[in-house]
Amino acid sequence: MTRERARELAEELVSLMTVEERAGQLRFDAPAIERLGVPAYNWWNEALHGVARGGTATSFPQAIGMAAMFDDALLEEIAAAISTEARAKYNALSAEGDRDIYHGLTMWSPNINIFRDPRWGRGHETYGEDPYLTARLGVAFVRGLQGEGKTLRTAACAKHFAVHSGPEALRHSFDAAATAKDMEETYLPAFRALVGAGVEAVMGAYNRTNGEPCCASAALMKKLRGDWGFQGHFVSDCWAIRDFHEQHRITASPVESVSLALKAGCDLNCGCTYEHVLHALELGKIGEEDITRSAVRLFTTRFLLGTLGEEGSEYDAVPYTAVECEAHLALAHRAALESCVLLKNDGLLPLDPARCGTIGVIGPNANSRAALIGNYHGTASRYVTVLEGVQDLAAGKCRVLYSEGCALSKDRVEPLAQPGDRLAEAAAVAKNSDVVLLVLGLDETLEGEEGDTGNSYYSGDKEDLLLPESQRLLLERVLDAGKPTAVILTAGSAIDLSAAQERANAVLLSWYPGAGGGRAVAELLFGEASPSGKLPVTFYKNEALEELPDFTDYSMANRTYRYYGGTPLYPFGYGLTYGRCSVVSLAANRQAARLTVRNDGARGTDDVVELYLRDEGSPFAPPNPVLCGFRRIHLEPGEERTLEIALDADAFTVVNDAGERVPGSGRWRLYAGFGAPDARTEALTGERARSVAMMQ
Amino acid sequence: MTRERARELAEELVSLMTVEERAGQLRFDAPAIERLGVPAYNWWNEALHGVARGGTATSFPQAIGMAAMFDDALLEEIAAAISTEARAKYNALSAEGDRDIYHGLTMWSPNINIFRDPRWGRGHETYGEDPYLTARLGVAFVRGLQGEGKTLRTAACAKHFAVHSGPEALRHSFDAAATAKDMEETYLPAFRALVGAGVEAVMGAYNRTNGEPCCASAALMKKLRGDWGFQGHFVSDCWAIRDFHEQHRITASPVESVSLALKAGCDLNCGCTYEHVLHALELGKIGEEDITRSAVRLFTTRFLLGTLGEEGSEYDAVPYTAVECEAHLALAHRAALESCVLLKNDGLLPLDPARCGTIGVIGPNANSRAALIGNYHGTASRYVTVLEGVQDLAAGKCRVLYSEGCALSKDRVEPLAQPGDRLAEAAAVAKNSDVVLLVLGLDETLEGEEGDTGNSYYSGDKEDLLLPESQRLLLERVLDAGKPTAVILTAGSAIDLSAAQERANAVLLSWYPGAGGGRAVAELLFGEASPSGKLPVTFYKNEALEELPDFTDYSMANRTYRYYGGTPLYPFGYGLTYGRCSVVSLAANRQAARLTVRNDGARGTDDVVELYLRDEGSPFAPPNPVLCGFRRIHLEPGEERTLEIALDADAFTVVNDAGERVPGSGRWRLYAGFGAPDARTEALTGERARSVAMMQ
Repeated sequence: MTRERARELAEELVSLMTVEERAGQLRFDAPAIERLGVPAYNWWNEALHGVARGGTATSFPQAIGMAAMFDDALLEEIAAAISTEARAKYNALSAEGDRDIYHGLTMWSPNINIFRDPRWGRGHETYGEDPYLTARLGVAFVRGLQGEGKTLRTAACAKHFAVHSGPEALRHSFDAAATAKDMEETYLPAFRALVGAGVEAVMGAYNRTNGEPCCASAALMKKLRGDWGFQGHFVSDCWAIRDFHEQHRITASPVESVSLALKAGCDLNCGCTYEHVLHALELGKIGEEDITRSAVRLFTTRFLLGTLGEEGSEYDAVPYTAVECEAHLALAHRAALESCVLLKNDGLLPLDPARCGTIGVIGPNANSRAALIGNYHGTASRYVTVLEGVQDLAAGKCRVLYSEGCALSKDRVEPLAQPGDRLAEAAAVAKNSDVVLLVLGLDETLEGEEGDTGNSYYSGDKEDLLLPESQRLLLERVLDAGKPTAVILTAGSAIDLSAAQERANAVLLSWYPGAGGGRAVAELLFGEASPSGKLPVTFYKNEALEELPDFTDYSMANRTYRYYGGTPLYPFGYGLTYGRCSVVSLAANRQAARLTVRNDGARGTDDVVELYLRDEGSPFAPPNPVLCGFRRIHLEPGEERTLEIALDADAFTVVNDAGERVPGSGRWRLYAGFGAPDARTEALTGERARSVAMMQ
Repeated sequence: MTRERARELAEELVSLMTVEERAGQLRFDAPAIERLGVPAYNWWNEALHGVARGGTATSFPQAIGMAAMFDDALLEEIAAAISTEARAKYNALSAEGDRDIYHGLTMWSPNINIFRDPRWGRGHETYGEDPYLTARLGVAFVRGLQGEGKTLRTAACAKHFAVHSGPEALRHSFDAAATAKDMEETYLPAFRALVGAGVEAVMGAYNRTNGEPCCASAALMKKLRGDWGFQGHFVSDCWAIRDFHEQHRITASPVESVSLALKAGCDLNCGCTYEHVLHALELGKIGEEDITRSAVRLFTTRFLLGTLGEEGSEYDAVPYTAVECEAHLALAHRAALESCVLLKNDGLLPLDPARCGTIGVIGPNANSRAALIGNYHGTASRYVTVLEGVQDLAAGKCRVLYSEGCALSKDRVEPLAQPGDRLAEAAAVAKNSDVVLLVLGLDETLEGEEGDTGNSYYSGDKEDLLLPESQRLLLERVLDAGKPTAVILTAGSAIDLSAAQERANAVLLSWYPGAGGGRAVAELLFGEASPSGKLPVTFYKNEALEELPDFTDYSMANRTYRYYGGTPLYPFGYGLTYGRCSVVSLAANRQAARLTVRNDGARGTDDVVELYLRDEGSPFAPPNPVLCGFRRIHLEPGEERTLEIALDADAFTVVNDAGERVPGSGRWRLYAGFGAPDARTEALTGERARSVAMMQ
């Protein structure tokens, strides 16, 4: 169905409603209008890395992990699978009369905010710190969710528009100040790209940006609907309109907040402030046309979904058994394999289970289901922790010993014990083992969203980049045992792993790899597959927090790999494999790079060719080369391939201080390798990468 | 080492201590006395169904489940395994300098209180409602823990002495009133039996009994040390001595509480009130000999354990790798198989996975690790939930769908959703399945101990015998789907499952089957083994709570199978198998019963021959026949065996109103079957059981 036809149908339907009925439809929990055959509909659903909070669903790696795949084709397949499960659930549950929250077809995903500061608790919901990567992945996700059918498979939502990345503690009252240059260069490109890709909804952020609340910002709305031509509906973040009068104090009452938001073009209210819409109408603060306009937009989406009208949707036939079907679980497994990032390996990995003897698996996240799933997750029917994955692959070949080692962040496991009450056990396990796998990190109770139950750690943000002290003590104690040790990190953001980098034999970052992700981690540890993920964020050293702008400062100066002048622990784009891939030749024009790559290692592997461009003449260019293309490839040992990789046209532009995107200097250098060109590790420099100068 | 020799060594060592040093040794966290080479020692450790709270350990079924095995030989093996793991941990952790709580050799297990009232939250820590069964199992557990070596493998502790079974909310101030007859007939026999078996420690209860606080009761201590000749040490329940002045208000100050307890013979203080021992001495409330007496008893235990002195213990060589070794895990698996009780089966079970098509596994405990372990548990390195067990056995044969179905006891899973937010999904799963496994029940957050974190459900007790309302609604909704359905109950106490009994095809009680117990449950469901557990408690209907004495009334009248006059849902001793075992002949004298049993079923099975005796002439005899012997057997299809089962001598006595155990009437009837003779089910009556009259 075309948008035009859906809009006609929506206008027709809305024209039959009383104004009271129209007003009621602007709430996220829209009631039924039985006389018009309109069923109740709850707009709130989540799909960040699987249908979330709505019961059983396939659990994919957390978004930040999926970004580390650098694989937009796979991400689109995943989003399609998520969307199909949402349809399956919608079909079955609405047939049971359940049209409640988390069971609908309007998915408030993806989160395409830029992971600007490593302390942000919600950074793991994003695709990282780079606008180009975020845009490409966001577009893939939207395409996967929405599909290319006659009707929308589900509706995607680009959030949080715009300029939103903590601090969580301040989000309801904070005013993010972003320069025009940073807006165009960093904060807006992904939103523009998703609008270009036809995203059906956009969600406004809690905070203000440059003085205006994001859910009623004239400046932002002008970009969105004016400059970019957004045709879908706009939804507030949850209870964000209440924040106008209660937190931001830019309005004096709910009625004023409603009026401001509705007139600005916020069509749907997640929250309950729009209960005051009719009151605002009575007071003459809004006109009936303001209500009608938003109602029509919302019903346009519902017609596009095929949930109203006689024609229905081709997805009405999706059976309940699509949920967690074999194909979707296989996708999740592949995603987990692609997302893990090998950060260090002195040769310990891959392990040969036949030669391991006794493996000691230690750490608070070794057997933790929470450490598999991040936040905004569904319910899996099978969790495989790292410990369980190792046990399954080691079965019959070696003994696996286990110690929790410490509490996730408390100083002891048992309230009545002395601090460090599992350290002696951890040491005993290490000493009785031939190799140690130490699983450390965070989970959604330590990094997450303000207001989430249980998350009381700086309102969800991290105070610093260190592991909790309990885990630092465990790391030292285990390393002191002197056994070959690999550290596995489960986290969704930069952690300073300097101690592990210095003293452990290997470090593998698994992110939150999805419910079954422990199996994939074990397969990587045992060499059944090669790690191939790349960091979508800079892993700073903790001291870098002294150099970065304040957490509340939205200036990009000295933030993220494009602008950071210091030496990170692990740079953006970084990730090792069990192969040894090189770029052996490189040529390029403005449309594409042509390069030959070869795997000189002894093992086949996926790897990611990354292309970066630096404008060497413009005063407006970021200081460091900028990602402008990438391609995931697989190379068997000795295999050589020639590739052509399209280059992003925007890469040849710069953004001036007025925020205008203008042509660059005409003098560029293109870098091709398996990491960012500023990487300080052998794998990413020297003979394994190439660069070439380009002139207009 | 003999007790006499250990006592000599203890006396010698204590004689070298100052009185201050002696006093300090009466605390559960006894400090080191370096000049005498005495290391610090924390007396508090737990071993209810595996080393608890001290890190990784093999996880056996909760005590109530192990009681349902009716297999004292296996229980003794299990206790030996637990004790060996405690030694392994003690050896390794003390070598690391960790001598903290939960890492020592004095295990405050078993809990041999009588599960008097089905509401008691700690009932699942016990061996049920029958004194004979409790005594036999408690003795086996003590033998297993303590071993028969030169030194004690670990020291066991009989708790809580005496007359202790809730309500939890009142335990710190409550006075349990028990008649002399109920004391001798019900509350004391197991304690006497364990003292006879050489239990090294006895723990006093929180409450008062007949006016005296149990940790300083002259009447109870006279029984214990006077009548029964108890030689070990006596420990207070934790912070129970503080209760004397703060809760019971039978003393006016800590010093008075200390004096009362120490003079009564409470040697060791779990808590900190004994910090006032020296003050009590200064005030002349106690003498130095009171301190010395207890110190000598405590050091006698330490010498018996071989942890002091030059000789050491033969168990010093137990390696760390004994923890969760294959043999112990196999024992836990066997225990789980033996403990599950099949309560109903219309023929649905066992399932044939090759013919199941799609199995729907539904319920809040289907994939719950907490539902595997009860309370007082260790940390397992592998949990297998019921869902995981079913998935593993069904792999490659049938599809398994899953729905959580509902929250354990809250009315919704997602805070923002409507109540029953997983019911539609559960219905969809049921309708898409060929057979449904519905896993309902409790966990330690719903039945447990007063003061435990997270347990806020009537201070740990149950208000009634019903499942939480969320689960009752789920049960109805799933049964309404009309698919063949088996209900699996995870709980540690009587639950009124009338709706399941009426409408489901099968009901299997798994108790809390241990960390790996879901595998065993699945094996039973799929017929890889036959259920064979028997109820160690009466499963009353909820209405029975109107008939039973008040929860605070410790009278046994109309309580438990020996005295209850009503019709239970499932009687004590009840449990079905996949076989069909009968008693085909029976003869008996006062020493033993001789009987022939045969399995006429199509499947081999374990089953439990149960012997009950009723005194048909004495006015002091309990109204119903009383368990006086049992034997677990295995019978292949068509197999017939003749057995001789020893009879308990006490079975031929009665207890008069003065609490004296006297000879019975001389006219008895002995019943032999596979359940209690008052059972109302076909399996336990008619041609499958036998009785015989006996005369003196």
